[in-house]
Amino acid sequence: MHDFRGRYGRFLTELEDRGLDGFLVQHGPNLTYLFNFTGSAGLACCLGDETILLVDSRYLEQARATAVNCTPQLIRSSFEQALEELLNHRFPGKSPRKRLGLEATRVSCDLWLRIQNWSAAVEWVPEHDLIESLRIIKEPSEIEALIRAFELAQSAYAGFLDQISPGMTEVRMAGILEMEMRKAGGEGVAFDTIVASGPRSSLPHGVATGRIWGAQEILLIDFGIRSGGYLSDLTRVHLSREVKKPEIFDMVSEAQHAALDSIRPGVLSSDVDRAARGVIERYGHGDHFQHSVGHGLGLEIHELPRISPSRTRPLEAGMVFTVEPGIYLRERMGVRIEDVVVVTDTGNRLLSDPAR
Amino acid sequence: MHDFRGRYGRFLTELEDRGLDGFLVQHGPNLTYLFNFTGSAGLACCLGDETILLVDSRYLEQARATAVNCTPQLIRSSFEQALEELLNHRFPGKSPRKRLGLEATRVSCDLWLRIQNWSAAVEWVPEHDLIESLRIIKEPSEIEALIRAFELAQSAYAGFLDQISPGMTEVRMAGILEMEMRKAGGEGVAFDTIVASGPRSSLPHGVATGRIWGAQEILLIDFGIRSGGYLSDLTRVHLSREVKKPEIFDMVSEAQHAALDSIRPGVLSSDVDRAARGVIERYGHGDHFQHSVGHGLGLEIHELPRISPSRTRPLEAGMVFTVEPGIYLRERMGVRIEDVVVVTDTGNRLLSDPAR
Repeated sequence: MHDFRGRYGRFLTELEDRGLDGFLVQHGPNLTYLFNFTGSAGLACCLGDETILLVDSRYLEQARATAVNCTPQLIRSSFEQALEELLNHRFPGKSPRKRLGLEATRVSCDLWLRIQNWSAAVEWVPEHDLIESLRIIKEPSEIEALIRAFELAQSAYAGFLDQISPGMTEVRMAGILEMEMRKAGGEGVAFDTIVASGPRSSLPHGVATGRIWGAQEILLIDFGIRSGGYLSDLTRVHLSREVKKPEIFDMVSEAQHAALDSIRPGVLSSDVDRAARGVIERYGHGDHFQHSVGHGLGLEIHELPRISPSRTRPLEAGMVFTVEPGIYLRERMGVRIEDVVVVTDTGNRLLSDPAR
Repeated sequence: MHDFRGRYGRFLTELEDRGLDGFLVQHGPNLTYLFNFTGSAGLACCLGDETILLVDSRYLEQARATAVNCTPQLIRSSFEQALEELLNHRFPGKSPRKRLGLEATRVSCDLWLRIQNWSAAVEWVPEHDLIESLRIIKEPSEIEALIRAFELAQSAYAGFLDQISPGMTEVRMAGILEMEMRKAGGEGVAFDTIVASGPRSSLPHGVATGRIWGAQEILLIDFGIRSGGYLSDLTRVHLSREVKKPEIFDMVSEAQHAALDSIRPGVLSSDVDRAARGVIERYGHGDHFQHSVGHGLGLEIHELPRISPSRTRPLEAGMVFTVEPGIYLRERMGVRIEDVVVVTDTGNRLLSDPAR
């Protein structure tokens, strides 16, 4: 079980540090993190002393049974109307004036403009990454959930390799992999499964199509499972025995090793990016590697920290992120190798088997 | 092939009608609809005479090959910076002042607040459903794509029924159904597959869990396929031969028939809702049916029109939506039957076989 009480305590401390009297939580993974709420819609209004979780009829039963740190309340018509009523009831006059934060990148411009006309006692404050910055350090129970997700993902991948053969379409192979993820016990996929054969492997985001895998072609597979609410993310390049290993494979592998070797507390995330990118640049493929080296993951497939040239945050123990350099030769082939690490007190530990 | 030129023409006419000199398109399905762009991130800036489609390196190759009605342009760092540069370049001074619309419910409060400080020549105008209101009437090619999606979905469902048996977990059964959707040729699932056994069927949103399907229990399956970019959405209640049909099944079926019988051009969407809801209320189950009767679908799983008590929009030929009444008896069982219709000139036509 996750430490929901501890999280909520850190959340309240963060509100205090930012001079906020309350906060509006709309983003699903943040609702899951603080309140153990997993419905597809919900709105939590934290007013310092208590949090009201507004839900619609689909999720009331579930919220009453499982939500923590909050009081679930059914909306009568819309979330917006329910929130307005709640605030007008709590703050009927113009004072005491309260500063309520909200998730600046999640709240729509539409809602932002409307709420300005509500309770005169509320000053709305756009905040960035308030809850996301708590989520960046994973608890031991979260690391366990992630390890489990990667175990299931790798077992599914092994089952997948036993069943595929040249002549199959990418979509068919994606289906086999997704079935194996379900068989392994996954609650679903973390994102659209990428199976890219031959020249399509040069598309960094080549979601499976009807293309047939040719006998002499490489296969790039980027896939994720959802297990216990947590996500895995792995990329493998599969080479059948008849296929000569492309030389860019070893370059990407070397780049990944260089990045992995650099990861420990205190190192800047941009330095991890540099470690991998430097190798690829030395081989003259700098222009063929445009994306960043990695991203955090957990309840979401893209979380903090970002491992990119422009992010200079020092790594801390408990951070979990992907390391996924690649080289993409347009219309010919691409290779990306993606594994995931957790930063430990002294270095890092792979959550997935390395593709060494 | 869809009529992209016609769509873009209607879009420009809509801008003119709303007194806009341009528009910012951020929402993925809207980018697909107008520009045939299917990447997971992109930003189109329409400036009346031309549209620039900003993309990152993952999608440049794809956009150049397939996008229409626009000029793809690679961003150097962020979408925001690229957009700001584009606007400053186009509108260097304070005049002529231009009114640029944006998607009020999609643009974040964060971006909204930032863009106020950009080019002084731009007045930003939050707009609602500008492109969505074009998408509400489906073109013949879209109806064809939807019919195909429902054919694949129903073929997958038939294959699924051949393979399931009591004793299986919900997750395993969801895996079988998803594999059948892939085998049928689906590009993926439209949403998390719902397989809810026994009392879990009373959860209107009971995503598959590890629960084992008991021999005497009903099974509620709500699933969707993605095919040619379009989505299906069907709910079936499966009763093995040993299970007595619950009386609420016939009530829900009668409610669905009543709604289907009411659908023709000119009828209000609220009247369709009323037709179904009235039947359920007459049986005394009004309190056990809290959600609305239906929703549009197409490129997204929830689109306009909404078929609910509060929406009074008259139906028009070419609208496509679900008809999905249900009765949910808490902690005992639930029944929902969901099919999809297209409104025709004289009435309506089912895109799915009715669960009659």
